[in-house]
Amino acid sequence: MSEITVSIKDGKSGQFAKGTPVAEALKELVSNKQRKQTLAVLVDGRPVDLSAPLENDAVLEPISMRSDLGLEILRHSAAHIMAQAVRELYGEDVKVAIGPAIEDGFYYDFDRPQSFTPDDFEAIEKKMAEIVAARLPFTRKEMPRDEAIEYFRQQGEVYKVELLEEMEEDTVSLYQQGDFVDLCRGPHLPDTSWLKAFKLLRVAGSYWRGDEKRPMLQRLYGTAFFDKKELKKYLNRLEEARKRDHRRLGKELGLFTISDQIGPGLILWQPRGAMLRRLIEDYWKEEHYRHGYELLYTPHIARQDLWKTSGHLDFYGENMYSGMEIDEVKYQLKPMNCPFHIGIYKSQKHSYREFPIRWCELGTVYRYERTGALHGLLRVRGFTQDDAHIFCRPDQLEDEIFNIIDLNLHILKTFGFADYDVYLSTRPDKYVGSDEHWNLSTEALKSAMEKKGLEYTIDPGEGVFYGPKIDIKIKDQLGRSWQCSTIQVDFNLPERFEMTYTGEDNKEHQPIMIHRALMGSLERFIGVLIEHYAGAFPLWMAPEQARILNITDAQAGYCDEIHARLREAGVRVEKDLRNEKLNYKIREAQLMKVPYMLIIGDREMDEGTVTVRKRNGENLPPMTVEAFADMVHRECEEGKQA
Amino acid sequence: MSEITVSIKDGKSGQFAKGTPVAEALKELVSNKQRKQTLAVLVDGRPVDLSAPLENDAVLEPISMRSDLGLEILRHSAAHIMAQAVRELYGEDVKVAIGPAIEDGFYYDFDRPQSFTPDDFEAIEKKMAEIVAARLPFTRKEMPRDEAIEYFRQQGEVYKVELLEEMEEDTVSLYQQGDFVDLCRGPHLPDTSWLKAFKLLRVAGSYWRGDEKRPMLQRLYGTAFFDKKELKKYLNRLEEARKRDHRRLGKELGLFTISDQIGPGLILWQPRGAMLRRLIEDYWKEEHYRHGYELLYTPHIARQDLWKTSGHLDFYGENMYSGMEIDEVKYQLKPMNCPFHIGIYKSQKHSYREFPIRWCELGTVYRYERTGALHGLLRVRGFTQDDAHIFCRPDQLEDEIFNIIDLNLHILKTFGFADYDVYLSTRPDKYVGSDEHWNLSTEALKSAMEKKGLEYTIDPGEGVFYGPKIDIKIKDQLGRSWQCSTIQVDFNLPERFEMTYTGEDNKEHQPIMIHRALMGSLERFIGVLIEHYAGAFPLWMAPEQARILNITDAQAGYCDEIHARLREAGVRVEKDLRNEKLNYKIREAQLMKVPYMLIIGDREMDEGTVTVRKRNGENLPPMTVEAFADMVHRECEEGKQA
Repeated sequence: MSEITVSIKDGKSGQFAKGTPVAEALKELVSNKQRKQTLAVLVDGRPVDLSAPLENDAVLEPISMRSDLGLEILRHSAAHIMAQAVRELYGEDVKVAIGPAIEDGFYYDFDRPQSFTPDDFEAIEKKMAEIVAARLPFTRKEMPRDEAIEYFRQQGEVYKVELLEEMEEDTVSLYQQGDFVDLCRGPHLPDTSWLKAFKLLRVAGSYWRGDEKRPMLQRLYGTAFFDKKELKKYLNRLEEARKRDHRRLGKELGLFTISDQIGPGLILWQPRGAMLRRLIEDYWKEEHYRHGYELLYTPHIARQDLWKTSGHLDFYGENMYSGMEIDEVKYQLKPMNCPFHIGIYKSQKHSYREFPIRWCELGTVYRYERTGALHGLLRVRGFTQDDAHIFCRPDQLEDEIFNIIDLNLHILKTFGFADYDVYLSTRPDKYVGSDEHWNLSTEALKSAMEKKGLEYTIDPGEGVFYGPKIDIKIKDQLGRSWQCSTIQVDFNLPERFEMTYTGEDNKEHQPIMIHRALMGSLERFIGVLIEHYAGAFPLWMAPEQARILNITDAQAGYCDEIHARLREAGVRVEKDLRNEKLNYKIREAQLMKVPYMLIIGDREMDEGTVTVRKRNGENLPPMTVEAFADMVHRECEEGKQA
Repeated sequence: MSEITVSIKDGKSGQFAKGTPVAEALKELVSNKQRKQTLAVLVDGRPVDLSAPLENDAVLEPISMRSDLGLEILRHSAAHIMAQAVRELYGEDVKVAIGPAIEDGFYYDFDRPQSFTPDDFEAIEKKMAEIVAARLPFTRKEMPRDEAIEYFRQQGEVYKVELLEEMEEDTVSLYQQGDFVDLCRGPHLPDTSWLKAFKLLRVAGSYWRGDEKRPMLQRLYGTAFFDKKELKKYLNRLEEARKRDHRRLGKELGLFTISDQIGPGLILWQPRGAMLRRLIEDYWKEEHYRHGYELLYTPHIARQDLWKTSGHLDFYGENMYSGMEIDEVKYQLKPMNCPFHIGIYKSQKHSYREFPIRWCELGTVYRYERTGALHGLLRVRGFTQDDAHIFCRPDQLEDEIFNIIDLNLHILKTFGFADYDVYLSTRPDKYVGSDEHWNLSTEALKSAMEKKGLEYTIDPGEGVFYGPKIDIKIKDQLGRSWQCSTIQVDFNLPERFEMTYTGEDNKEHQPIMIHRALMGSLERFIGVLIEHYAGAFPLWMAPEQARILNITDAQAGYCDEIHARLREAGVRVEKDLRNEKLNYKIREAQLMKVPYMLIIGDREMDEGTVTVRKRNGENLPPMTVEAFADMVHRECEEGKQA
């Protein structure tokens, strides 16, 4: 029996008999403490079980409980344990399909005549706990594919048979814990006792292999962690995200709705959502005006020829809807605003003296998305870009980029986003425009970001074919990342549309064009805002800023009066004078996340004041109507200058 | 020879020999004064020449120079005189087609190898004056159609021949003055000397019989009046309208443009026009909010099925563009906003307590118009309705109509329209909804108008099939009428969409729906506004309220400073610091109709003031920057509350 040399990457080496299991080798090569954290290893970069025999010289990398790969293996094993539990509970009624680890957890697809119920969840979790307590080892067995097919056929596992029949390998591996055997590449936990913290989350329908012509299976989702505290933290976060789900809040707060009769992915803004949108649009327009932008309005359709000139029909056609005819001329719904701004540019002659031209538009565009990909406000088919195009000379590019970033961060901050990641994407392999222009632009982007003191990551070669770009991903209250802002230099469209300006040299030149969107789309951004604020918007963008609640009918007249006075003073105030208990009315206002409740009893009426209750339950001392209005305006101003 | 009895309607009678010419009879039956004003008569209601013989008993109505019919006959004769002049000047090269009187004048279509030039206009007018001076009688001659065809064929007048060949009468009438003979039903002036005041206006291409496959003719337009003062007044009004033409001003003031590349009838709002539009939109939104309306936003497309349910596809299909496909489902661009508002209504349950619901939207719709019918902003293919839908109970209808009219007149007045005609259209022959509902609604409309003290005209049977309506036509500075506002009750859509609310009786009822638009469409209304104000908009809606003009470079720094201060103070101010003469810069600002020019010299800089010049040339004494800003804000507030 010959010896082999086994070493730990960046660590100890040792001589072992050929066939020594990984676990044995580790005993001599790593500390006890590290060994207890290790659930599998990479052998020359390939993940294997601790029980695997070492047949050749090898470099080992222990896979720790703290690593992402470790967590993935845990969850994969948890899927097997769940399948075992389901099989033990529901016997031969159940056929198993596939069960991988996924981001944040795992799932397993089952074919079972009955639907899984919440009671089943409890029973399955209990059975899984028994399996964990039994400390069953995961054992790997290799066998010829034909033999495996025969084995699963006898078990009636038609899905496994189908998978095996399509595999090309002659030999396949099976994993077994207790009586449960699964077709699997592994690796897995050494035994079931490693699964300390797990939870079943939900069940959803799922077609076998994603094909709607194949059977509909039941997909059980769960998650697992190495310790209970992590699991609890995750479940809290899930609950928090569920509470903030913009689709749920959108319905509860009366912000928006989507109608099958009108079409999926098309947003109908209800009154409160429309008010929110209007406030955001007004703020956006004011800020852009203050920063030297001019607003434009352009139509939603244009001749198909325009989209041929722009190139969109060629390289963006699959995102565009089919054309429509007007007097035998084809028209298209717009997926972009750029060619319209170019149309306005070309309606007049331009001189270098006019530059920079900064044109912005809240332009509603329509793009194709698969029905399955649609998601509330976050992924839609019609959306309003907060678009702008800047036309400038090369020597103005850096200043313009600096100004855009400045405005961008200012606006994001006003909406409560102070945390973001910035990416610079540079020249890809295929591109248009001269190297000189690319270099000049890329340097201008870098230099502007550096002057702004912005840290950024370079994505080499990830720029669009027409120019380099900056992307900003914002982080919300739950730490989730959202791609919103983008700033792109474009050498392509000015060329395609033969745009020119007269330079100081009296010759015709091609302007530099910058595309940029700060919020990205109003729909998506408002979706993120709803989740970020959990629907409790800052005062300046709250659709309803205050609600007047009377204690008894005796104050109804006074309530009408202060309602009118506050409206006149520019406060978005409503009144709830229903003959209901005050606490009931307060609870309703809180559910609607109204920032201020004005409680009106006899004392307030006699003294001509209002008692102010914040939505967090805090009470302010009584104040006059004017003092309240002033407070509201001050808080709004501060909010907008955040 | 027998006698006949001839009488003047509501006047004298007399006995005359059969065959007496009309002119002879008039000598005895009307005063000399009236006879001199009479150029033709209605014989038993049929217009005939003064030279026509009276063959039977008849009642005559003299056609006076002061009547519309008199003016029409004058212009028709003027067309013949113009044709005679053209024929005499250009001989056999010219073929004549047709030449009727039209609103405001007349035209004649000519087939001539050479184009008519301004020089030709002068020559033709001179020749016409000669014909007028020659006092040639218009003589009528009847002949068999075959003979007439032969006559015109010999003259080479192929168009006359074609017309004659299609006529069904056996006998036709020709009119002759001098050597010029035309196929014509008449009547005409007694002789050419009656044409005292005429003017050729323009020439335009026109296909023979409007068919683009037939020859392109030259249509010469002219106008004529009975006296020179009237002509002059008309020409002045034409010139005024030309100066105010919104297409010309739109270009000069940089308000909007239309691009062939994008498509006819689709408006691209340039920066200054977009600012104007934004100011109007903001004002509109504020006023609607103040009047208890809630804003909505809805998409521009919907499934075709929605338009089937709404009925638009059936009864409005020819105004809609062809559908487009998304995932094999047909979608349509919206020609109306109503079904979307209904979609929002139906997203929730409703109780009588919520009523009235007042929902408004600046909704952009697309409708088909023939290319030839398109006209600047006034007739377009894509436009933004200032739409609203009110849902209410029957007992609220009258109050709601009153409120709508109130808001309507208030908004029209703010835009400078205090003159209007109001029409009430009642039930047509074909209609939906119960008689009870129609009566209730029609009475509610009447009663609301009467409470508002509004005079109105009833258009019996002119209501839409789904309900009665009120239309308001505004009158502009030149006295022209424009249909803008409409208020319509609708019993149809609530039925088709099965809309309900829970009544006080706890049962389900169908709400009443009111459609209304005050401006009609933003595009059209702004078109009217441009012409109404001749581009010199009131301060509150002026895209540029003030322009800073320095006298020398020495004041440039101070100009920058006050520019920043005024912007901060919310004044829409620009600066023109070019090294040009002050008068040149003033003239440019005046051409752009900027309300205030701030002239800055050394004195203003030393004293920290601005010298204010109004666009009408009036100068105000120097004032501080703050005083100017205050003045601007005050004037804007006053303007909005006009």
